[in-house]
Amino acid sequence: MATGTVYGIGVGPGDPELITLKALRILRAAPVIAYPAPLEGDSFARSIVGQFLTGGQREIAIRVPMLPERFPAQDVYDRAAREIAAESAAGRDVAILCQGDPFFYGSFMYLFGRLTARCRVEIVPGVSSLTACAAAGGLPLAAREETLTVIPATLDETSLERRLADVEAAAIIKLGRHFAKVRDVLRRLDLAERAHYIEHASLPSQRILKLAEVDAAGVPYFAMILLRARIPDGEGMP
Amino acid sequence: MATGTVYGIGVGPGDPELITLKALRILRAAPVIAYPAPLEGDSFARSIVGQFLTGGQREIAIRVPMLPERFPAQDVYDRAAREIAAESAAGRDVAILCQGDPFFYGSFMYLFGRLTARCRVEIVPGVSSLTACAAAGGLPLAAREETLTVIPATLDETSLERRLADVEAAAIIKLGRHFAKVRDVLRRLDLAERAHYIEHASLPSQRILKLAEVDAAGVPYFAMILLRARIPDGEGMP
Repeated sequence: MATGTVYGIGVGPGDPELITLKALRILRAAPVIAYPAPLEGDSFARSIVGQFLTGGQREIAIRVPMLPERFPAQDVYDRAAREIAAESAAGRDVAILCQGDPFFYGSFMYLFGRLTARCRVEIVPGVSSLTACAAAGGLPLAAREETLTVIPATLDETSLERRLADVEAAAIIKLGRHFAKVRDVLRRLDLAERAHYIEHASLPSQRILKLAEVDAAGVPYFAMILLRARIPDGEGMP
Repeated sequence: MATGTVYGIGVGPGDPELITLKALRILRAAPVIAYPAPLEGDSFARSIVGQFLTGGQREIAIRVPMLPERFPAQDVYDRAAREIAAESAAGRDVAILCQGDPFFYGSFMYLFGRLTARCRVEIVPGVSSLTACAAAGGLPLAAREETLTVIPATLDETSLERRLADVEAAAIIKLGRHFAKVRDVLRRLDLAERAHYIEHASLPSQRILKLAEVDAAGVPYFAMILLRARIPDGEGMP
């Protein structure tokens, strides 16, 4: 019997219409779907594609403690990987849903590392939060010879300062409760005026704010700050 | 009369199935489509979506001299922007096709800069070459607290060395005829073994090679090198 393929599927940043045709085709055809979920409550990745599900698929909810700063619980991913590998061994395709893109800072990596030696794994890239935030804000990420740096807000202040000191264009991701720290670093480096804050990109609740307008206590984990490149005098858009 | 909306639409990296549902809906409904094209011959962006076009749409080919290192010809974009703004003023929506994502190093920026003050412009994010190359190679881009740096290969050697000296994960984009220079810099920095070369990601002609296997004379402009993060001893995937 042929083994099933395991698909790591990017379902995009939140708007269900930002899923790709390929993701949708595979998602609908797979007899088994799997997705990350909190210990209690709904999976965001599953909610994005809920309207497309036909029913009758087996669903594997990978319930991970939501402690984004801590190393994820190894046994949760061990168990999920065993379950997914067993489905593959039984000849069934498994579609693993990933918010945004599977390989852009996603928890899918923990499954990928465990499954790639055991199963045939195929990645379906998706619209990442990076390009979705840029689109939401009307903020081009980078052009021409600009370097674009993606920096997790979870870094300590010293590392953040070091990484930000020499950037042209940048995205600071995974803000959550790290927002105030990042804002302070940006102010110290005189970068605050170039910063744009974006939350819930592509969803009806989407907001784009200046740093000074953001309530640090209410920043979602997936919110992001985009820094535009410093445009030298006399050199603008052509 | 209401003015038309100008859409900057990411059509993805090349595989027509990697277009989003939203891009497809807008593309099919727009009475006018526009796209970059070489001075003679076919537009790659249009070829991606050709099978979805219904006919009967006005098409504006923006024919740009293919000199990626030179500043693009201003008058070409001036003229295209005038033409697109006139369609919008006449009440017609215009869908501008962008390979990959409109705001990730795309030539769409030159139009965006000219149109955003004159028209209602909406961006539809797409699957970028960055995530498509990662998916093609089975190469996670970045995870956890890693910084990801995107560096144009068009930089001079000194700038490349400076940008690469301190990177964790990196993508070196727009390789083309700059490949040999980049390869030499990576070798000097002892980074060549961590490098993966990807061309034509998501297309049937897709290839993933080690640096030593690449023929420098045949590297496409849109080829990319991905550098994986250096994983400290004892800390791997959990």
